[in-house]
This record gives sequence, structure tokens and C-alpha cells, in this order.
Amino acid sequence: MHCPDRAGIVHFVSGLIAKKLGGNISSTQELIVTGGGDGRPAREFFMRVVWEQKNGADCGETASFFARHLRPYGAVFSVDDADRRDRLALFATREAHCLVEVLAAHYQDILPAEIPLIISNREHEKVVNLAHMFNVNFYHVPYEGGMTPQERKKALKKQSDLLRDYGIDLVGLARYMQIIPPAMIAKYRNRIINIHHSFLPAFVGARPYHQAYDRGVKKIGATAHFVTARLDEGPIIEQDTEEVVDQSSVENYIEIGRGIEKRVFLGALRKYLERKLIVHGNKVIVFT
Amino acid sequence: MHCPDRAGIVHFVSGLIAKKLGGNISSTQELIVTGGGDGRPAREFFMRVVWEQKNGADCGETASFFARHLRPYGAVFSVDDADRRDRLALFATREAHCLVEVLAAHYQDILPAEIPLIISNREHEKVVNLAHMFNVNFYHVPYEGGMTPQERKKALKKQSDLLRDYGIDLVGLARYMQIIPPAMIAKYRNRIINIHHSFLPAFVGARPYHQAYDRGVKKIGATAHFVTARLDEGPIIEQDTEEVVDQSSVENYIEIGRGIEKRVFLGALRKYLERKLIVHGNKVIVFT
Amino acid sequence: MHCPDRAGIVHFVSGLIAKKLGGNISSTQELIVTGGGDGRPAREFFMRVVWEQKNGADCGETASFFARHLRPYGAVFSVDDADRRDRLALFATREAHCLVEVLAAHYQDILPAEIPLIISNREHEKVVNLAHMFNVNFYHVPYEGGMTPQERKKALKKQSDLLRDYGIDLVGLARYMQIIPPAMIAKYRNRIINIHHSFLPAFVGARPYHQAYDRGVKKIGATAHFVTARLDEGPIIEQDTEEVVDQSSVENYIEIGRGIEKRVFLGALRKYLERKLIVHGNKVIVFT
Amino acid sequence: MHCPDRAGIVHFVSGLIAKKLGGNISSTQELIVTGGGDGRPAREFFMRVVWEQKNGADCGETASFFARHLRPYGAVFSVDDADRRDRLALFATREAHCLVEVLAAHYQDILPAEIPLIISNREHEKVVNLAHMFNVNFYHVPYEGGMTPQERKKALKKQSDLLRDYGIDLVGLARYMQIIPPAMIAKYRNRIINIHHSFLPAFVGARPYHQAYDRGVKKIGATAHFVTARLDEGPIIEQDTEEVVDQSSVENYIEIGRGIEKRVFLGALRKYLERKLIVHGNKVIVFT
Repeated sequence: MHCPDRAGIVHFVSGLIAKKLGGNISSTQELIVTGGGDGRPAREFFMRVVWEQKNGADCGETASFFARHLRPYGAVFSVDDADRRDRLALFATREAHCLVEVLAAHYQDILPAEIPLIISNREHEKVVNLAHMFNVNFYHVPYEGGMTPQERKKALKKQSDLLRDYGIDLVGLARYMQIIPPAMIAKYRNRIINIHHSFLPAFVGARPYHQAYDRGVKKIGATAHFVTARLDEGPIIEQDTEEVVDQSSVENYIEIGRGIEKRVFLGALRKYLERKLIVHGNKVIVFT
Repeated sequence: MHCPDRAGIVHFVSGLIAKKLGGNISSTQELIVTGGGDGRPAREFFMRVVWEQKNGADCGETASFFARHLRPYGAVFSVDDADRRDRLALFATREAHCLVEVLAAHYQDILPAEIPLIISNREHEKVVNLAHMFNVNFYHVPYEGGMTPQERKKALKKQSDLLRDYGIDLVGLARYMQIIPPAMIAKYRNRIINIHHSFLPAFVGARPYHQAYDRGVKKIGATAHFVTARLDEGPIIEQDTEEVVDQSSVENYIEIGRGIEKRVFLGALRKYLERKLIVHGNKVIVFT
Repeated sequence: MHCPDRAGIVHFVSGLIAKKLGGNISSTQELIVTGGGDGRPAREFFMRVVWEQKNGADCGETASFFARHLRPYGAVFSVDDADRRDRLALFATREAHCLVEVLAAHYQDILPAEIPLIISNREHEKVVNLAHMFNVNFYHVPYEGGMTPQERKKALKKQSDLLRDYGIDLVGLARYMQIIPPAMIAKYRNRIINIHHSFLPAFVGARPYHQAYDRGVKKIGATAHFVTARLDEGPIIEQDTEEVVDQSSVENYIEIGRGIEKRVFLGALRKYLERKLIVHGNKVIVFT
Repeated sequence: MHCPDRAGIVHFVSGLIAKKLGGNISSTQELIVTGGGDGRPAREFFMRVVWEQKNGADCGETASFFARHLRPYGAVFSVDDADRRDRLALFATREAHCLVEVLAAHYQDILPAEIPLIISNREHEKVVNLAHMFNVNFYHVPYEGGMTPQERKKALKKQSDLLRDYGIDLVGLARYMQIIPPAMIAKYRNRIINIHHSFLPAFVGARPYHQAYDRGVKKIGATAHFVTARLDEGPIIEQDTEEVVDQSSVENYIEIGRGIEKRVFLGALRKYLERKLIVHGNKVIVFT
């Protein structure tokens, strides 16, 4: 939840949980973000609470309960059952490294999601095989620059239908090389995560590793962000960098970069799936 | 504070602060440590709360207030004024790197302490000069293996008197090469921090870098811990490691190690001074 | 190659390659390890040279050539074709994380090996499935404490036959929970790599994460080493550590530890397969 | 040295040293940078050689020797005596953290330089004191935006005279908040190192931490680079990044950033002073 900062919120919310709901709080985290800008309040209060509810609970009812009680605080919040797993779809094109990282993590039970669906606009063997190996439904939905508006529209319809039919909660773009149209972004607002292969905002746009090599940077990075209408400018979830010791060719940058990309992509998906993210304006608040 | 875990504690404590003391909580952190052992309860609850008290407050009175209210919970706690700075004494022998790191950090206002006192059992120029440069009182109190019990006793008396006269709260052993006697450990229980030049429990005892070089480890480390009667076995506060890329000589290990030592030593002092540590049995709970 | 240090070696060896073999050197790395001990010379010279041989070359002939010319230097060396891939066998028991890391890396073409064989002393579903998914031959060879010496001998015979039949060059113990007998160690000297789940030499032996949790260390680690007759004391190839921020339970240590183990195991295998390791006494010289 | 790549260079150069100069090579490092661009050759060969010269040597004579022999290779090179220390001047304005880091490292004998001179365009107490504490000559040379061209010219003359009088080899801009004029850049080509408080090329220009905070990046960084006529676009020497866990205010970014700045600045100066840098076009080749 978040709301403009005000004295007594922690006590009030912990009281709702402990006294009214009979829950036992196992962790709380608060953050007061200052500075405002963009019409944000000068001090915005963010909180994440995890509690154990003895006799189980209905999330819908609990949400209504909080809606009633938090109204005076102007709070935005969400309630979720830690045991419920989101359904994740992965979009791919040509490269398999981000895909295999996510599927391998899921195989090891360290990614709390269901992964029923992979969509690719190409039929590369490495990508198609992965879907079969990990027993995920694969759909080849051709989509690219050269298509007519009508073909494009049809493809997007197909994608949308698949996401709906498979009950998808979250979309991960695993080096999917196409732009997501506004309609889909609107439908899955703050639920589409992209991995960009640079340390944003450096090297926006095409061929970031070549840009990095030409500039002679000593570290390269990758950035996972929510997709918005403005390319490469969505709220940043996670970033990492690594040193390029051997600067002899752009191929080194690309290879090291792939290692960073897959790690950052997986990290961002995981934090989303563990409900540790709050999007606020163009920023993501990340709980630990 | 910490106490055996129990439902409703967060709400109860936040209520004491918000309603009874009129404070505005800016952050809380909780941790429930499981596993017990050593006669510890199966689930021990730890909490750190920071709040703003509008009209100021007397720490002694506040502590009495909490003592009354937290008794039923069996809680151990401490209350402190974030603006009050502990007084830190540094012990040294020969090497200057940990000393200069702490003094330089203090000069940059990133170590919330007063540093009125340096005691060394030698008079090495690099160490003596630092005291003068940073305007800290320096005392040469000879102390070493070859002394008679009586000389030793006299030296310890001198050290104790200095700590008392300068109103010292915390002692940092900045590569002080002597064993601290039980009486002083008892007097400054969990208030003497040592930096050991290995990643404990590896390479206990003398010449850890030579041990590490001979074993061919690929990373070396350093450990800051509270001093207890059992050498190198006190509760660990902070540790770090670094890769030794060039394994050609033990001198490389030592040089890289010095960089780790001073960073870890400073980090541990800083966390203590920011009141982020709770010692519990042989462990230190570190808040972030 | 390595030999006692002596003036002019770099020039001599580069001359053999450039003038006699007509090769174009693309990289050389040298290291002079000092300190000796264990009957090692005071200054031992290590070198790794990579060169391009225009008209191809026979490694056997090239090795004979070097043997002739390097004899006066007392050099130990090996020559290999960078395009030849070693054949790697993986041993497993119950846990799948190290296995999946290696197989996934191989799938992404970042591990220069053939992987024809997985042997497990159990038939855990997660492990068996991986072999099928990645199209690797799987053999269940029961082996454990309770067996009779004869059963044990038969099992070891079976393992040996498999390694021979599949032409295995390197064995990776992917959290294989059994001790390798001396005969196999002798046969695959410096060709069996184990991953130990602690930062050696800390926490030797059983349940290292529980040991680490009980000691309250702030970072945990993993170590990849060659297997020798002395358990957990073989030459160390690679190590890493990671901070345990949430020290609330041993389960956190184990989960973070698994991430380190698989990364370190893969790193060690990769360096072996890229011919970047020289074992010298109880140490491994690692080229970058 | 560097030159267009060609077979036999390693052997040729090692022969010049071993046979003609009678030196004993202790390390060589080579790098072949591909890709060219900007009129660079497709494969440029870089090498750094360290050797021991028994009877000492005159660097000027040795340089003439190499000039004669390397002419056919089109090589650019420099020769230096590892025992000779460059003379470093530091420029400062208001902030002391980069200054104290360099002076403290020098005090610990881990920065192979003489530091005879600090110039500041302000007289901030923290900066002035440091000069006195570490016994470095301090000059206050006012210089800022509001000055007349004539005042400015006079100030630059004063700076130039000081650099000349103190025999300065290298200038480090320790958060000096003024633009260096082209004349001085030309005179100290690739010998002025600046620390920029962002991970370039992200956040060029003013107030980079505020830019980073507003963008919501999860890691911030710093960049040390040679100063050229184009602001913040000079060849990059060293970069690092660190996570900003607590994103609650821009002050956190600034504090963490200061820690990165001073570390990166010191690292870049050190590599220069250890002669590990070759500037090539807009890139710096860094030897390890």
C-alpha cells in the first residue's frame, strides 16, 4: 500500500491486521519517499506487510475490508494470497538465454509462477525445443516490420486471445524484438516486463553493445523495466553491471551482457511474482 | 528490542510509540529468527523502530516507559537518541591502514562518533602522525608479550583509566596485535570490535594470509567481530571477500587483504554507531 | 607450461612458435609464483600461449616438438587444439541445481564440451528428467553407505566402464553425495571436479550451511576443487561468496548457497574446458 | 606499445629485451583489439612488457633503441622506469571526499606518486585543512563563472605556472567544478583525469544524482576519464556502480555515490601511475 505520509499509519494498519483480522504479522517494511515532483506529494508512505491468517481468508473480502478502512488515508493498496501463483507468459524471438534462465529457475522451484505459454514471432529451433523440453505450450505467431497493418492486427488478436485463454497475469519479454502496441500495454498495465540490454538510460535503442564498445565503457549492464508507450523509458525494476576486462572485441561485450541480461530478467520477474514491487509514477518501489 | 515471538507485537509497540509517546514512526524492521539452539527460543522476534519525537524526549524516561510496558513480553531493548554520538577509542600497534580509514571517514562526516582517543602499544611514526594530523589524543601505552605480570597490570590500568577519563563508549581494535584481558572484555561487553584478517572461521590464529596463500584459496576475506574471551570466536558483525587474481605471491594477498580489512572494520563500526546491531547469544542481528 | 624461472624463456618459447612452427601468437600470459614450500622452487614460471596455426597442426607432433626443445628447461607442458571439445560426465544424487546450470549453459553454447553421460546413485525424478530433456544418456548406478564391499566394488566397476565406454575426459560431481574411491581418483587425476557447499577451508565436512548458520557468518560461499584422496582438501579452482542479508533461518543460507554453488561449479568446469588451469602441488594456477 | 597486428611481434619484442638489452621479462600482456572504426586498423596489437634490467638502464637511450627497431612495425610506445614516481597535482573546489581518499592512499604507500600540489578555486576549510594535514602545498586560485575574461586568463596563467614550477606530470580533478580550457588540455594531453559522478554516458551534465533519482535507476555509478575538449566525452579509464537499496531520497544517492566516486578516482589515478593505460582514439586500453 501507499499513501501520503501521516503520523500513526503503521500502528493503524498493524491494528487492522492484528485486531480486526486476527492475523500474526511476520514482517513489515516501510519507506517514505521524499522529493515529490510530477505532482507527487512531498512525502509518500509505502508499506508492505506479510502476515499469517490462521483460518485462511478470502482475498476479495479482505480487500473490501481494507478499502473501507484505508479510504480516509487516500491509500492505494493490493492484497494477495502468498500461496497463489501468477501465470506467466514468455515472448521470444531468436535468442534463448533469457528463456532458458527463467525455465531452469522454474524447474528448480525458485520462481513462484505457473508458466503455461511461450509465444514467438519466429520458429528458431533453440527456442522451440526449450518449450518442448520444459513442457510449455508453444505458439508461433509471426509478427514483424514487413507485415501489412491487417496481418499485424490479426497477429495481435491472436496474441491477445492466447493471453486471455491461458489466463495470463504477467508477460515477460525474453529478448522479444518487437514493439508492443499501446492496446496491449493498456490491457496489461505494469504487467509486461522487458529486458533491455544496456544500463538505462545509457545506450537507448538499437545495438546497445556496439554503442558501448564504441564508447569504450569499462562496465556494461542490463535493465529490466515495465513496458510503457515510451520505448525504453518505462519504470525500472532491476539493473546490474559487470566489468568487461577483455575489451578486445564487441563479441566479449555481447557474451558478458547475455549473462547479465538473464540474471536481471529473472530477478525482476521473481520480485514481481513475490509481490515486492509497487509502481508509483515512473518509478518502481522495490521491497527486499 | 527482541523477545520470544508472539502475535500482535508490532501493533503493540507501534501503539506505544504513536499513541502514548506521540511519535511518528519513520521506519520499522522486524526479523523472526528460527532454529533456536543454545537454549534460545524456537522463534525469537527482533525489531528496530525509528521515530520522530516532536517535542524531544528524555531517553532515560522513555526507557523506563518501555520497561514497564514490555515486561509482559520478556523483551530486551534499548532506546537511544539518534543525535547523540558515541565516543570511540582506537587501539593500534604497527599498521596504519585501518586507522586512517576510520579517521578519514570521520573527517568526511560519514561516521557518527566522537573520536577523542588513540592508544598504541608501539610508537610507530605512521600511527603517531595520524593522531596529530586528525587532532586526536595519542597515548603510547607499552604492552607486549615480554612484559612482567606487574608491568602488564600497570599498562592495563593505564588503558582502563584512559577509557574512563575520555568517557569511551566503544573500542575499535585497528589491527591491535595484543590479546584483550577478560576484565576489560567484561567491562566493555559487546563494545569492543576487532578486525581479523581472514574470512572466519577459516584461518583462525596467526598469519592468516600466509595460511591462505599456502592453501591456494581464490578469494580472501576479513571479519569484524565483537571481542569475547575466546579468541577469534566472538559474534561476527561484518565480513567481506575479494578475488586474488594474481596469486603469484603472499604479498598480493596481504595488499588486497588490507583493502578488505579497512572497509569491513569501518562498516562494522558504522553499523554499531548507527545502532543497527543486536547481539544475541553468539550471533549479531544486523538491521539494514 | 611451467618450469623453474630463468631469463629468456618468453623469447625462447615465442620463437619456437613463431619461427619453427610458423604460428601467430594471439595471447600469452605469464606468472612467476614465489615462495616455494613443499619442495617447490623459489620462483616457478608459468605460461599459457594461444596461437593460430595456419595450415593446421597435429597436437601429438607439436607436443613431441616441444618435448625436445623444452627438455633443457625442465618444463612441464601440454598442447591442445582449441577446437577439440572434452567429453564431460556428470555425477548426481538428489539435487538438480548444479546439473541444470551446466546443462543449460551447454544448451546456450557457452560450455565448450560434449556431455554424453549422467550417472546418479539415486533415481530422483528431477535429475532423471533433466537427462531426458537435454538428451543425455542417464545411468542409475546405486551406490551408498549401506552396501556390502562386493556390491560397492561392482558399482564402481560399472561407473568405470561407463566412463571408459563414453570416452570421458572430465568428471563433474554435481552435488554427488558419495566419496570417490582412490582408484578412480588415480585414474582421473586432476580430472574430477567437485563442488563443496562452503567457502573452504571453513566448514569442512557435513552440513556446512547449518555450521555457517550456527556460527552467524554474514557471507556464505562455495568452492570448486579437484578431488584428491583427502576429502575437501584438493586443489581449489574457484570460490565465491554472497551476503546473507536475511539471517532468520538456515533455509535462507541453503537457498542463497545453491545459487553460489551452481555458478562456481560451472565456472570451474568452464575454465578447465577452456584449458586455463595448471595444477601445481596443492594449488591451481588459473589463467584469465 | 601498440601497432597494427602482425605475426611474430611478441617474439621480436621479447628478443629485443632478452637478447639485445639483457633484460629478464617478468610479465607480458597482449591484446588484439578488433573492429577498427574511426580510421583505426581492423586488428590493432597492444602489448605491455615488464622486465628487470640488471645493470640499470637509461630510459632515454632505451627509448631510442626501441624507436630504431620498432619503426618497421609502425609502433607507438613508451618506456619508463618502474621506480620513477610521477608528480601529481590535485584540483578541488568544495568537496573533500575524493581528495582525502587519494591523500590517505598515498599516506599508506599504495599510490606510487609524489603529491606536491593542491589547487582549489575556493577556500573551503575541509579542503584547506587536508593540504596542511598531509603536508601538501596549497594554492587558492579563484576561478569561476562570474569572472571577467581577463581575470580568468590571469587565473589560468597562475595555474599553469604552478603546474610547471612543481614539475607536474599528472593532474587529478578531485570534484573540481570548473571547465578546463583547451590550452591546458592540449598541454596535458591524456594527463588530466576527471571523476564524473555518473555512469557515463548516462546522466551527462549537471546534477547527475538528481537525474538518476528522478529516473528511478536501481544502481548509480561514477566514471573516471581523461579530459578532452568535449565535456564528459573523454576516454573512459574506470567505472563502477553500486545498488541503491533505499531509494527514499536523493540524499541516499549522493552519499552512496560519493563512495563510488572516490574509489573510481583513486583506481584510475593508480592505473595511470602504474603505467597500465594506453589511450587509443577515444578508448583507453587498461592492462591488469
